[in-house]
Amino acid sequence: MARVTVTGQDMYTLVERLYPLCRSITGDGVRATLDIVGEYLPLQVHEVPTGTQVLDWTVPQEWNIRDAYIADTTGNRVVDLAASSLHVLGYSVPVSRTMPLSELRKHLHTLPEHPGWVPYRTSYYKPDWGFCLAQETLDAMPDGDYEVRVDSTLADGHLTYAEHVVPGQVPDEVIVSCHVCHPSLANDNLAGIAVATFLARALAERTPYYTYRFLFAPGTIGAITWLARNKERVERVKHGLVLACAGDRGHLTYKQSRRGDAEIDRVMGHVLAASERPHRVTGFTPYGYDERQFCSPGFDLGVGSLTRTPYAGYPEYHTSADDLDFVSPEAMADTLAVCREAFAVLDRNRRYLNLSPYGEPQLGRRGLYDALGGRSDTKQAQMAMLWVLSLSDGEHSLLDVAERSGLPFDTVAGAADALHGAGLIKA
Amino acid sequence: MARVTVTGQDMYTLVERLYPLCRSITGDGVRATLDIVGEYLPLQVHEVPTGTQVLDWTVPQEWNIRDAYIADTTGNRVVDLAASSLHVLGYSVPVSRTMPLSELRKHLHTLPEHPGWVPYRTSYYKPDWGFCLAQETLDAMPDGDYEVRVDSTLADGHLTYAEHVVPGQVPDEVIVSCHVCHPSLANDNLAGIAVATFLARALAERTPYYTYRFLFAPGTIGAITWLARNKERVERVKHGLVLACAGDRGHLTYKQSRRGDAEIDRVMGHVLAASERPHRVTGFTPYGYDERQFCSPGFDLGVGSLTRTPYAGYPEYHTSADDLDFVSPEAMADTLAVCREAFAVLDRNRRYLNLSPYGEPQLGRRGLYDALGGRSDTKQAQMAMLWVLSLSDGEHSLLDVAERSGLPFDTVAGAADALHGAGLIKA
Amino acid sequence: MARVTVTGQDMYTLVERLYPLCRSITGDGVRATLDIVGEYLPLQVHEVPTGTQVLDWTVPQEWNIRDAYIADTTGNRVVDLAASSLHVLGYSVPVSRTMPLSELRKHLHTLPEHPGWVPYRTSYYKPDWGFCLAQETLDAMPDGDYEVRVDSTLADGHLTYAEHVVPGQVPDEVIVSCHVCHPSLANDNLAGIAVATFLARALAERTPYYTYRFLFAPGTIGAITWLARNKERVERVKHGLVLACAGDRGHLTYKQSRRGDAEIDRVMGHVLAASERPHRVTGFTPYGYDERQFCSPGFDLGVGSLTRTPYAGYPEYHTSADDLDFVSPEAMADTLAVCREAFAVLDRNRRYLNLSPYGEPQLGRRGLYDALGGRSDTKQAQMAMLWVLSLSDGEHSLLDVAERSGLPFDTVAGAADALHGAGLIKA
Repeated sequence: MARVTVTGQDMYTLVERLYPLCRSITGDGVRATLDIVGEYLPLQVHEVPTGTQVLDWTVPQEWNIRDAYIADTTGNRVVDLAASSLHVLGYSVPVSRTMPLSELRKHLHTLPEHPGWVPYRTSYYKPDWGFCLAQETLDAMPDGDYEVRVDSTLADGHLTYAEHVVPGQVPDEVIVSCHVCHPSLANDNLAGIAVATFLARALAERTPYYTYRFLFAPGTIGAITWLARNKERVERVKHGLVLACAGDRGHLTYKQSRRGDAEIDRVMGHVLAASERPHRVTGFTPYGYDERQFCSPGFDLGVGSLTRTPYAGYPEYHTSADDLDFVSPEAMADTLAVCREAFAVLDRNRRYLNLSPYGEPQLGRRGLYDALGGRSDTKQAQMAMLWVLSLSDGEHSLLDVAERSGLPFDTVAGAADALHGAGLIKA
Repeated sequence: MARVTVTGQDMYTLVERLYPLCRSITGDGVRATLDIVGEYLPLQVHEVPTGTQVLDWTVPQEWNIRDAYIADTTGNRVVDLAASSLHVLGYSVPVSRTMPLSELRKHLHTLPEHPGWVPYRTSYYKPDWGFCLAQETLDAMPDGDYEVRVDSTLADGHLTYAEHVVPGQVPDEVIVSCHVCHPSLANDNLAGIAVATFLARALAERTPYYTYRFLFAPGTIGAITWLARNKERVERVKHGLVLACAGDRGHLTYKQSRRGDAEIDRVMGHVLAASERPHRVTGFTPYGYDERQFCSPGFDLGVGSLTRTPYAGYPEYHTSADDLDFVSPEAMADTLAVCREAFAVLDRNRRYLNLSPYGEPQLGRRGLYDALGGRSDTKQAQMAMLWVLSLSDGEHSLLDVAERSGLPFDTVAGAADALHGAGLIKA
Repeated sequence: MARVTVTGQDMYTLVERLYPLCRSITGDGVRATLDIVGEYLPLQVHEVPTGTQVLDWTVPQEWNIRDAYIADTTGNRVVDLAASSLHVLGYSVPVSRTMPLSELRKHLHTLPEHPGWVPYRTSYYKPDWGFCLAQETLDAMPDGDYEVRVDSTLADGHLTYAEHVVPGQVPDEVIVSCHVCHPSLANDNLAGIAVATFLARALAERTPYYTYRFLFAPGTIGAITWLARNKERVERVKHGLVLACAGDRGHLTYKQSRRGDAEIDRVMGHVLAASERPHRVTGFTPYGYDERQFCSPGFDLGVGSLTRTPYAGYPEYHTSADDLDFVSPEAMADTLAVCREAFAVLDRNRRYLNLSPYGEPQLGRRGLYDALGGRSDTKQAQMAMLWVLSLSDGEHSLLDVAERSGLPFDTVAGAADALHGAGLIKA
């Protein structure tokens, strides 16, 4: 318990450090983010040049911003990038003008229904500029001229993403992906980055069965770039999980892969149900996070998405209210714990073959069974052995055994280990 | 709305005109019926000679009737065909005798539980004669002699049925069938004839995708005759609907094809559910109307049956109480509307193939997507495009997309049109 | 009704006769049991030598016991085999010693939660000796020395089991198995033996379709021995039922085969549901009775298990309280009745092929259909014929027809007989 709390606090600290940076799908905000994550985890950082063709897309120009503000005639900055990275429309082209509020208005984005909150808006693929601000701020701006300045550059450069690999016993891979392109939004997705980071560290404590590949990349174009550059590797990706919105106080939500019955879907469903946490499991939709790309019909990978409150499911979503108060160490620790439980199941889940399938093998003479007969309080471990023997026909996984028998997965996996040790089953 | 009401009245008028005719499975009553329908719709009328072998059956002799009555000793007609075509047992052989009531009774059919109603009875394949009358009428008949006369002929002739074809873009056919053999019964099946007639007219307003073949034929033997004479055409019949009991005030009932998962079953289920009308969907039974023949295991066509209150589901069924008051213009208009909606879905329902299946194609540069990112109120049309792209793997139809996404079929079909126009999917 | 009661009493009498015998997995108790059953049913008795390898097991030494007791210093037998065959730990090795209670205790088995009951315990495969007694008896035993004597022999000999075959019209077999290794336990399994015995007699009343093979064998090792010696015959076993706990007053419980959808599973589920008895159907578990062996993944036979209150489901299970009062003639008669009903369905359940599959065949001219049309009260028998014709495509059994139509199986099978007689379907 204490250990989990400490990790929750560690993740929260990482979120705090990442929060002020002005991230976008390209640029130095992403690089600075990866630098900080790199303090926790060795990263392989990739820089992909502007103009590179990636699947149906092209890597865009790189965007960097130094300053952005709206100042009144007295020089007072009423909206200022320095106060929040949300204030500038993402990918704003440079501007330096004075204009009346009436003209400026069409470049201003507010949330009238939440007058104190600043929305998050971008215009990646259509050249535009703009500011996001609280409705209250706008309401307080008198008519008249304003100085408007966006000191940005949009130029050939690179798209940046990073990978971290936890080597496993087999080359088959599990991909864990999170997006690193959102500016000062704590739940979406700094909490996801933090959980992914500490999940990678936890998995490395002992060599896992699968090789786990962590991907820190900008949303959509980052996943598309990775897929375009790793088409041959994709065949090795057996399972995957997209992490996002990992830190709010709501219940966990697992969104299934497009297949709906992929092993990760079954594992996550089982672990969430067995944990007796309140949770939701939802079917795939072609919207949300980068599961959209991993599950596109050409790839159709077994990749689901784990969030707490899902995409667009809370009013603070994509607003300045998704701030450091909106996420908690406990929530992130809980998300991390479920990921670890799920991967522990995934890593041990095998199909075995009963090598003595005609009648029951005599477990007693192998020391696997109580000598005293007649008692009805047969132990779980013995029942688990009988179940594994019964269902190990090459068609059923240990997770199938656990679900059909109602026994805990750990007990079933332990029974399989004992039977394997006795030479009664083979993988 | 006004338009629907007018059509409802038009259908009601057709029912009124057809009501007095004495129809049976052969004879001039069928011909007169087809003459009237032919005023609304060009018909190809077929005459099939008595004795023709049709599948396991033989076309029977043709039955025609001029007069039929029971008169008391004063010459007063206590039962008279002229009053209702139901009064004579269908296919009654000629008789002209005087007999005591005690002997006559075994030729009389009544409904003691509904003493004011006249039942509908036939004896097509066993030579017999008889009268159907109200129990009240019978109760009022004093003992004694009665003159009994059935002036009918049962002789070699023809079985008559008609077809009307609405040519489509493809030769694949949808068959719409209704029975034209029942005498003065308004719901079963004059309403079905009326809805079929006006459905054919509506479909012809623009060239449909499928070729729609309307069949106006006597029940059982008519469908069997058509099947026997169209064995090679049957392969072209992809979907079908049997219309009956289309005008009573009860809810709609769709009875599935024998397959249970034929496309027509899915389309009708979807349209009825999406319309939020109260309705019922029932499984196939080998009884009811001519779906029995179309769904016999050798053909096993995807043919369902649409009724309002189904076969034998109302006390007025097969009695004189199934009269002009029992059906309404509004009910027929409602049945027609659902048929039109269903065929609109059927006609647009395709399986597409995503031509850019690796990752999402960039919809934005094709003008198919909002430029401004970050907003969570993504429009239905855009969601529909993502769903169509996601599921267009050759396995899923647009109806699958609509059901899985929860989006209206129209929206999904519109999205498919847009994607097809942009070259992103192919049929 | 009277007949059923008589049979219930007959079965109860058989249970009474078998009750005192000290059975185990080998030895003269089994032989004496089979001698008694043999008075009701001709049996083929098999003797398999100690040391015979049977699948993964070896036939153990034969155990016989003449006397066993604990006597106090006055010579008074406080625990005595003569009082109950449960008092000795099954397969106890010989012992003849005097020892203090403190030392004796570790050889004593009681049920503290049921202080008046004697438990049933065995140690087949680990050499040991012991006594089972009521906790009350133990509590009343003063400290001090006791004479302990087990006059048993454990020596090379044989394992004994028996078969009875009811020859059928086809060599395909139904196996009915019950265990004969439990000492004085009435429900588990003397009631099972009695029901099996009278079921065999009932089946022989007329030649059944299947060949029914009854197996009276010790649990686990007996079934394993039979399977080992009948590997080629196993291919002929199409269905099977393990009978146990057949006489208590609880509801019937059918436990499905490992397959879960074997024909016996469907038949038992149908018959129990159609009978409107309260009952339970449970999924397979690899524990319980000899269905464990028949359903081991290498054989995977369609063998379920019928009990009343199932394995370990009642507190009296494997204790002296499972006595002659615990079972009733009525309960055994009820179990027998369900077995007979189920095998009557199994025996008649066929897949037919409609030889006139295009349209409905004209049943009327074959005398299979009412001549008078128009009536809506079509009889069940006629509906059954239409259903059989509709579903006789080689894919559906008569049980499928019964379940889909909701008609009684008997009606459906009768309709199939009529259609078969008319040459309209073939098996």
